[in-house]
Amino acid sequence: MIAGHVFIATSLDGFIARTDGSIDWLEPVQNPEEDYGFAAFAAGMDGVVMGRATFETVLGFGEWPYEQPVIVLSRSLRDVAVPEGLEGRLSFRAATPEAVFAGLARRGWSRVWVDGGQVVQSFLREGLIEEITVSRIPVLLGEGIPLFGSLPADIRLEHLETRAFPSGLVQSRYRCVR
Amino acid sequence: MIAGHVFIATSLDGFIARTDGSIDWLEPVQNPEEDYGFAAFAAGMDGVVMGRATFETVLGFGEWPYEQPVIVLSRSLRDVAVPEGLEGRLSFRAATPEAVFAGLARRGWSRVWVDGGQVVQSFLREGLIEEITVSRIPVLLGEGIPLFGSLPADIRLEHLETRAFPSGLVQSRYRCVR
Repeated sequence: MIAGHVFIATSLDGFIARTDGSIDWLEPVQNPEEDYGFAAFAAGMDGVVMGRATFETVLGFGEWPYEQPVIVLSRSLRDVAVPEGLEGRLSFRAATPEAVFAGLARRGWSRVWVDGGQVVQSFLREGLIEEITVSRIPVLLGEGIPLFGSLPADIRLEHLETRAFPSGLVQSRYRCVR
Repeated sequence: MIAGHVFIATSLDGFIARTDGSIDWLEPVQNPEEDYGFAAFAAGMDGVVMGRATFETVLGFGEWPYEQPVIVLSRSLRDVAVPEGLEGRLSFRAATPEAVFAGLARRGWSRVWVDGGQVVQSFLREGLIEEITVSRIPVLLGEGIPLFGSLPADIRLEHLETRAFPSGLVQSRYRCVR
């Protein structure tokens, strides 16, 4: 069985980035001594599926942060060459969430890190997300790119655990109830 | 000094009610043995300021739940008679957040329970909210009436405490940083 896992930070008002993609508001919680469970989460994933906006934000970091294969879902990038140095570590695809997961399951993936607002929303709508870890940053932005979006029906969640950190970040982990 | 305090429940995606005002999705966390700190919060407040939508939702409960005086901010209700049985406990006003607080401060209020999405948003925009207690219910609704809205600038928050309850409700208390 293949399932999507989300590990993401939002403002208290639910934004993953400002309208222009900026994540400067994460700075107050950044701390070289505390990764908020990020490395352990990433180590448990077979690979990453993200959208174009997240991909472009990550490219802007300079250093490619992923150990695992990364699939970028994008209609506009699917015929574009992979950037130099990322051959074999990154591929572009244009397909439905189900088709993407079916292909990844055939490659033996079972735990997929699903990242970015639009892609998380589309995989949630299709019932392909198993767990969501949300880290709330203590700031209200007023506007930005939301983590969550419209759904065909309510999604019940099971709360698994919550941890509050000295920086004020509050991290909750939920399982989607089918 | 007069200050606003918010004590409110939202879905994980940040809604305080469905688009039609329904709060049926709160039922899974309702428990006669656990009030999630509500009575203690309410007991510390001098009175309540809310908007018309919240007022109408509360009227629908049948029983009036407030011990303290309640001010309903509404341009459309300000010339309407207070419902029978609530004379002296409820008043309608149409004024800016600052003017409302100035009037309440003259009456000796210092801790004001500010309730309802639109009213919370307008008092936040004016810098009149001191503390926010948000209780996250483990459900995604997809759409509804949001707790937070646009702001003239970021509002930094200080995280004071977080408690997770067996029902899956996660409650975090924040102070707005001026």
